[in-house]
Parts: sequence; structure tokens; C-alpha cells
Amino acid sequence: MDNQPLRHETGLRVRYAETDKMGVVYYANYYIWMEVARSEFVRELGVEYKHLEDNEGLLLAVIESNCRYLRPAHYDQEIAITTSLGELTHRIVEFVYQISSADTAQILAKGSTKHMWLNRQWKPARLPDPYLDRLRQAAGQTKK
Amino acid sequence: MDNQPLRHETGLRVRYAETDKMGVVYYANYYIWMEVARSEFVRELGVEYKHLEDNEGLLLAVIESNCRYLRPAHYDQEIAITTSLGELTHRIVEFVYQISSADTAQILAKGSTKHMWLNRQWKPARLPDPYLDRLRQAAGQTKK
Amino acid sequence: MDNQPLRHETGLRVRYAETDKMGVVYYANYYIWMEVARSEFVRELGVEYKHLEDNEGLLLAVIESNCRYLRPAHYDQEIAITTSLGELTHRIVEFVYQISSADTAQILAKGSTKHMWLNRQWKPARLPDPYLDRLRQAAGQTKK
Amino acid sequence: MDNQPLRHETGLRVRYAETDKMGVVYYANYYIWMEVARSEFVRELGVEYKHLEDNEGLLLAVIESNCRYLRPAHYDQEIAITTSLGELTHRIVEFVYQISSADTAQILAKGSTKHMWLNRQWKPARLPDPYLDRLRQAAGQTKK
Repeated sequence: MDNQPLRHETGLRVRYAETDKMGVVYYANYYIWMEVARSEFVRELGVEYKHLEDNEGLLLAVIESNCRYLRPAHYDQEIAITTSLGELTHRIVEFVYQISSADTAQILAKGSTKHMWLNRQWKPARLPDPYLDRLRQAAGQTKK
Repeated sequence: MDNQPLRHETGLRVRYAETDKMGVVYYANYYIWMEVARSEFVRELGVEYKHLEDNEGLLLAVIESNCRYLRPAHYDQEIAITTSLGELTHRIVEFVYQISSADTAQILAKGSTKHMWLNRQWKPARLPDPYLDRLRQAAGQTKK
Repeated sequence: MDNQPLRHETGLRVRYAETDKMGVVYYANYYIWMEVARSEFVRELGVEYKHLEDNEGLLLAVIESNCRYLRPAHYDQEIAITTSLGELTHRIVEFVYQISSADTAQILAKGSTKHMWLNRQWKPARLPDPYLDRLRQAAGQTKK
Repeated sequence: MDNQPLRHETGLRVRYAETDKMGVVYYANYYIWMEVARSEFVRELGVEYKHLEDNEGLLLAVIESNCRYLRPAHYDQEIAITTSLGELTHRIVEFVYQISSADTAQILAKGSTKHMWLNRQWKPARLPDPYLDRLRQAAGQTKK
């Protein structure tokens, strides 16, 4: 109940640079939006990713990404991205995204990205407990 | 036997622009490489995508994409992308990619993209038979 | 006095995708930010560029761009871009940009872009008077 | 005579990702091409930029860039970029670019970039003599 999973909403507006000659947003750019959304999400949790990278020496390396494109997105359109947490362990973080038109709430795309923590030597690392706990709470995955 | 599935190999070199502050290639850029690879692949089949778009009024819209990242790619590294065809109907084309280090042949990433043909009104369209046949032959999927 | 030249301020936050392996924002991305800034600027003038493109059949083609980089910009940094109008005729629009750190107000880069109006046939076109007047007023270039 | 200034030619093909909804190459992407061209140019001089960055701890930071756009570039078009050296001191390197259609030799754009050497602490650095000599020879700027 108090474990309601957090969903973070990010807003952005389609840039001209993000369109292609088909007149709509180029498919790879949805992954850039996902990154913007998860950065904001993590920041909202009180964990600045920049801090983890600079101070804890932890890198969050993408190991998997996917996207299903339902409707095209257009230049200047306002986009809303809802981000939530999926799989969550000391080693793995999964983010799940829903990308919609901010005006009509129509879903434009759905995707997810899976990440692994690495240390500065690019070896698999464990996210320290306090950080994981904060993520778990955010995900509504804390147990009684 | 004469239906050996075609595999197209594309070479490219990692651009500085494609790296990020983690020092390796940014995850969305693999999708740009996949697009370069499938363009070359389609061109090699004797079908210039530009021609389909300009003359047949057909657009190939991405409906799904995914990538698994196995090892990082670095600036200036020579990359080899092997592209082959997966699912193939009048309406759907799937491309499957293997992205490797050109030097060591180590696999860096694997992915696929699924596409739907659209007409100029952005309605689902059918790829005309001659084109489909050429793709099917390429895929080694012709029956005799 | 009432012709005080308009300066539009745009805010954005550095995306991870915009950094490169040097750890700072890749130089070409400042031009994307300039485009975001001039889009907002033009929108604020009550002229949606999308409208000009879709309804008047006018394209604003870049004919020149330049940037001087004074200090690097970093991931997650909040950026403020001040945009104003430079040269302004029926055929040419020039935008002038100052890119700063939103926190410290330190100037990071200065640039400008020069554009030419084209019609749908990609021939030079003239911006209709009502639009030009609105731009001139915005630029504080109206005469008594 | 034996000091004929070196001009390096780089070839590339326009990627779909590089176009925008105007149907042509987005203006910021010319700067990415310039970077590809100067990387190849420097590599041809026998100096791998990657080596300078990794072994000498030298970064080449862009301090200025500009481009004049004469004709649009289109998807799938083969592009030829001619790169030569401009200003050249221990501290500053300038590259000058001419971007043409590989087929027609028509010039599409002209630009230049100016760079400053930095050490790992991001302080201005001097390019060691052997490297500078090699660049000077390449530029046809060696004196008797």
C-alpha cells in the first residue's frame, strides 16, 4: 500500500534533429529519450547517477534494450515518458518505459532497458545496499 | 543448396561522435549501425531502398528493435556487421544482426529489427511480389 | 524603448548521449541545442515553425553556422541558451546564441546560424510581410 | 615543391539517421563528418589520434567550428571530404574541409575547425615537436 510502485513521468519535446526524412522521429532516438527518462527517474529517487559514477566509481552499463513502435512521433510534439522499475538485484537494474503523446495520452512506443553495474575496471560490481534499498522502495518491492 | 541464406557483411569504423563519457559507444548508436547494415544489405540485393521510397512510394517503418550488448565497442575500432533476413512476408521484414570486432571477430552485440511496409498515406502496404521474391531468395527461403 | 530587442532564454539539461569519450559534450551537439533554442524562440514570437513549414510551405534552410567553445559542458549540467535575432530580411534570418551554465552563468559557447527561406521546390522564397514584421518587432528593429 | 600541401580525401555515404524531416542531411551532422575526415587525415599522417589521447595524455579540444552550406546532401549519397591543414602551431591546429558529392564533384559545404591541445588536467598543452613536424610537413609548411 505504502509500497505503491513509483512511476516517474518525464516530459520532452521532439527536436528537429530527432526526425528523419520519413518525417517522423528516427527509431534510435527513442533510446535517447529512455536514457533521459531513467536519468530523471534515478535523480528523483535521490540518487544522482553522476554521483554514483564520479564518487562510487560505478558505471551502469546497458546489456539489453528493446522498443516496440506503435505510432510515429512528430517534430515539436510533446512527449510523456513513464518509467518504472522491473527486475532489480544487486547486479541488475531493469527500467520499463511507456512513451506517449502528452496531449492525447496515446501510447507511441513501449520499451525496456536492462543494465549491469560495473566498477572502474569494467568488472561486474554490486550496487551497495543503501542504494539498492532506495531503488527497491521506489519499485514497491520492499517486503514487510 | 543454391538457397544458401545470404549474409551481408558491412564494415565501419567507430566515430568519436558515437562514444559517450563512459569511453565506449553509446547504446543507441548500435541501432544506427544496424540501419547502415540493412541499407547496404538491401542495396546488395539489387533493391535500392531509396528507389522503393521514391518510386514505389513505400516506406519501411520500424515496428520493433532490440539489442543485446556483450562487449563494449571503442573509438576508432573497426566493426563488422553481419546481416541476415528473419521473418519475411508481404507485410513484414525482419533483419538479424551480429556486430563484431573486425580484428578479433569477437561478438560485441546481437540485435534485430522488425519492419512493416507503409504506403505514402502511412497505411500498411504489401511489398510487390518481384521485390519479395528477391528478398526470399536472398534469405534462402525459396521453396522448389 | 518599447523596441527593446527580445532575447529568448531556453533551458535544457545535458543528456548522456550528448557527451563523448572526452567526458564532455561533443562539439556538434551545440548546434542541436541552437536549433532547440531557435524553435522555442520562434514559437514564443507566436509563429510556430511547424506551421510555416506545413501551411505556408516555407522551409528555413541553414546556410551558415558557427560556434566558439569557451568552456566544456558536462553531463547533467543545466544549460541556459539566450537567443536573439541578427540580420533580418525577407530572405535571410540570422540567430545569435549565447550558451551558459544555468547555475554559474558562465558562458560556455557563443554561436550563430544564418538561414534562407525556401519554398517547397527548394527555391529561394520571401517570408510574407506579417511574419517578417513580427520578427522585426521581436528584434527591436522596427522604425518609428 | 616537395612541400606540396597534403590533402586527404575521405569517403562516406549518407546515413538515414543523418537526414531530417526536410529530407536532407541535418546541419549539425556535417560536423560529425568533419570529425571523421580529420581522424582519417591524422591517421594517414602516421599519428593515430587515439594514441595521442591514450599515450601522450593529449586531448585535442575544439575551440571553434563553422560551416557554410551550399547545396543539400541526400540520403544514400556518396560524399567526398577533402581535408587540409590551416593554422598550425604548438598549441593550435586548424583543419579546413571541403564537402562534395562524390559523383558530380559539386561542392556541398565548406567548413573549418580550430583545436587546442590540452593535457589530462584540461590545461593548455604543447604538441611535442616530432608530432608538430609531421603535421607541418603534411601541411607543406616546412621551411628549408
